[in-house]
Amino acid sequence: MSRSASGDRIDAWVESEKARMLSELEEWLRIPSISSDPARSGECRRAAEWLAAHLRSLGCEAVELLGSRTHPVVYSDGPTAAGRPTVLVYGHYDVQPPEPLDEWTSPPFEPEVRDGRLYARGASDDKGQLFAIVKAFEAALGQPGDLGVNVRFLVEGEEESVGRVLSQVLADRPELIEADVVLVADGPFYAPGWPVIEIGVRGICYAEIVVRTLEGDLHSGLYGGVAPNALEVLVRLLAELKSEGGRIRIPGLYEAVARPSLRERQSWQRLPYSADRFRRQEVGARQLVGERRYSVHERLWARPTLDIHGIRGGFVGDGMKTVLPAEARAKVSLRLVPDQKADTVLAQLTRAVHEAAPEYADVDVRLLGGTDPALVDVSHGAFEHLERAFRQVVGRSPAYTRSGGSLPILASLGQAGAAVALAGIGLPDDRAHSPNERLDIGQFSIGVRTFARFFQSMASSDEKEKR
Amino acid sequence: MSRSASGDRIDAWVESEKARMLSELEEWLRIPSISSDPARSGECRRAAEWLAAHLRSLGCEAVELLGSRTHPVVYSDGPTAAGRPTVLVYGHYDVQPPEPLDEWTSPPFEPEVRDGRLYARGASDDKGQLFAIVKAFEAALGQPGDLGVNVRFLVEGEEESVGRVLSQVLADRPELIEADVVLVADGPFYAPGWPVIEIGVRGICYAEIVVRTLEGDLHSGLYGGVAPNALEVLVRLLAELKSEGGRIRIPGLYEAVARPSLRERQSWQRLPYSADRFRRQEVGARQLVGERRYSVHERLWARPTLDIHGIRGGFVGDGMKTVLPAEARAKVSLRLVPDQKADTVLAQLTRAVHEAAPEYADVDVRLLGGTDPALVDVSHGAFEHLERAFRQVVGRSPAYTRSGGSLPILASLGQAGAAVALAGIGLPDDRAHSPNERLDIGQFSIGVRTFARFFQSMASSDEKEKR
Repeated sequence: MSRSASGDRIDAWVESEKARMLSELEEWLRIPSISSDPARSGECRRAAEWLAAHLRSLGCEAVELLGSRTHPVVYSDGPTAAGRPTVLVYGHYDVQPPEPLDEWTSPPFEPEVRDGRLYARGASDDKGQLFAIVKAFEAALGQPGDLGVNVRFLVEGEEESVGRVLSQVLADRPELIEADVVLVADGPFYAPGWPVIEIGVRGICYAEIVVRTLEGDLHSGLYGGVAPNALEVLVRLLAELKSEGGRIRIPGLYEAVARPSLRERQSWQRLPYSADRFRRQEVGARQLVGERRYSVHERLWARPTLDIHGIRGGFVGDGMKTVLPAEARAKVSLRLVPDQKADTVLAQLTRAVHEAAPEYADVDVRLLGGTDPALVDVSHGAFEHLERAFRQVVGRSPAYTRSGGSLPILASLGQAGAAVALAGIGLPDDRAHSPNERLDIGQFSIGVRTFARFFQSMASSDEKEKR
Repeated sequence: MSRSASGDRIDAWVESEKARMLSELEEWLRIPSISSDPARSGECRRAAEWLAAHLRSLGCEAVELLGSRTHPVVYSDGPTAAGRPTVLVYGHYDVQPPEPLDEWTSPPFEPEVRDGRLYARGASDDKGQLFAIVKAFEAALGQPGDLGVNVRFLVEGEEESVGRVLSQVLADRPELIEADVVLVADGPFYAPGWPVIEIGVRGICYAEIVVRTLEGDLHSGLYGGVAPNALEVLVRLLAELKSEGGRIRIPGLYEAVARPSLRERQSWQRLPYSADRFRRQEVGARQLVGERRYSVHERLWARPTLDIHGIRGGFVGDGMKTVLPAEARAKVSLRLVPDQKADTVLAQLTRAVHEAAPEYADVDVRLLGGTDPALVDVSHGAFEHLERAFRQVVGRSPAYTRSGGSLPILASLGQAGAAVALAGIGLPDDRAHSPNERLDIGQFSIGVRTFARFFQSMASSDEKEKR
């Protein structure tokens, strides 16, 4: 059967099954599997069980829940084709917290289709994108002939909380990630019609800074003017850590930063970047900030950053309270780039915070999660199969870019020798991690059609690709 | 009857009635009359009604609830003695929010006596101290002979929230505060055995600063490095507003500040101030901060201050969320001293915030409450009566000091021509506005005994004091 006839068949199948596929996805999205919230651990388990049952319904026989009662890794062998290439599909079933709830147009765990987009927490990141691969697997299976490729699923439930279950599972059973290629859909196209394969991700060092200045809260009228205010100390300390121009003031932080090659930076300049569109429609800001001597792409993909995620302390209810707070906390994270290491950066941050703090304050830096940055080797032949599939479906070869986000598992997958292909099918305005997260339904179809072609293309490759 | 026989009689009455008085007070303290919390407005009403009923039970006939359904002013004439001096008792039945709840040893609205102290929100500020005057009135009434002095009560329910009800009531009925002397118990002794009459209070300008940098929250992985972070802007802005040395960096702010006279400052130096005790036991800090060129008393009573009371923005729940916050808010207040004006300072703060903010951020300064500072004229003869009463009960004349706190009504009371006597009977470690607020029961007795003597002394004064 010719490649194009097979492709037409896939496209027809996707069109006829679309409504069913979306209703299955909506069922999964209704489960609030927020991994960072201990109160939702039962929901994380439910989301894992839902996926396991779904994979079984597609013919996967060895579906296991591994490593944790509450946040298990879902692992599944597809139908086996001995001696043929193996594609490992990685994704995650956990989602970010939905707060602030009042900014959602429809509730985060009640999926709703509006204007050709499916709105729900996890619609894009990552249930929806992962589900496009699952459905591509179903589509490829549904085609005449044997699948001719081994497809395995490895889906974790702690990607958004940087948990330890997956690394523990892999420490016990490293063979789980033996594969020729790892396929991941957890990110956006560069723009509509512009697919990308991301070859780098930033790492992260996420910490909480705790400041204490008093034994207990005081009345600002009675003690204001002499009593140290914990929020004031915290504010001054945070202001110290980064210049207004975006330079992080942590000694040693930039020493390990490797600049991308000139070739890579030049390729980024060929992307259809519209400064105005990016700033207004995607970021939604009056002005971009940061290190002006680096391009926006370099700032996003290849420069470390420091952001404050939340501050807690004192009185934040309605009305007035003249409290002089004894304690204040900030959640901050640094995004890391090759060749930084999360543990080194934590030590640098901790030292900088202690040095910036006045002697009358107790400060503490607590790591909440860390993962190293990673870069992928793109010499593997599987990338050509994936390039071709995208070209057939969207009419353009994917560009090789990076992601500013973090993917803890990438380093492990790469170390196991597999080619890791990060080929997200979202769009830049999917609002991952924000209110009104959504997935463009057209992109979902593109994902199913592309990945089904990729599976078939891998299956029809003449020989097992080099490892 | 000799003065000392009358004093003995008062003391015996206080001793025999103490348990009953405390149980009455506990009943009142159980009502969570938090005026800054709209959800508690019904409780504020209940607290007002409780007091009104109690005053009626003591023989006050004209007890009215004025100006508001939810936060009324309680106004009451005592038994009338035509032509005799009039003492107006001012206080407030509303309390501060009790948060953080988990730092309370016993729940804030379940009064509990431990080690001779009564623990509850409002035990000291101000239900407990006001109640000492109410009971002194009862004690004085219970003595043989006519009371010989007019005692009126004016008790508001918005002192902790700087509401408008009292000022509206007084605008309609200015005669309510016509009196020879206004007695207020809402503060501490300088130290045990060291009563004070406070002749000055600081004003306050309490505002919320709102910063917005983005249309919506973003994912720090995808946009960190180029997207402006509202918390970062807020932090830098707050750090700008005050130097580490305690100097407020708001142009023009210090222009209206009048330094206390050398005589007043010298009298403060005679107070039994123990730097070590104050810092460790009262403030609970490793080091005092602020403007080192001014004494601690001057910093507390006669210098403007700026404090951050709370910051809200981003994600502060458990776990990690890599949100890049679009909006952040800070509650701040400035304490003001003579001759600053709250409305002038608000304008100065607003201008400074707008000037410090980067052009890519929207900032807004919203007034939550403001009141001017005030100083009392101490030439009125009533001060001698109060001095004598304290001398009889605690063996020492009260010192004339100031309060670092704010008392919105003081300026109005003073303008009406009355002598205002701020004679708190709390202790410095009462923890007003903090968890585990308490009232020393011995101090409560001192209050009842002193104020009952004061009423009788005023009653036996030969003529109506000059207005």
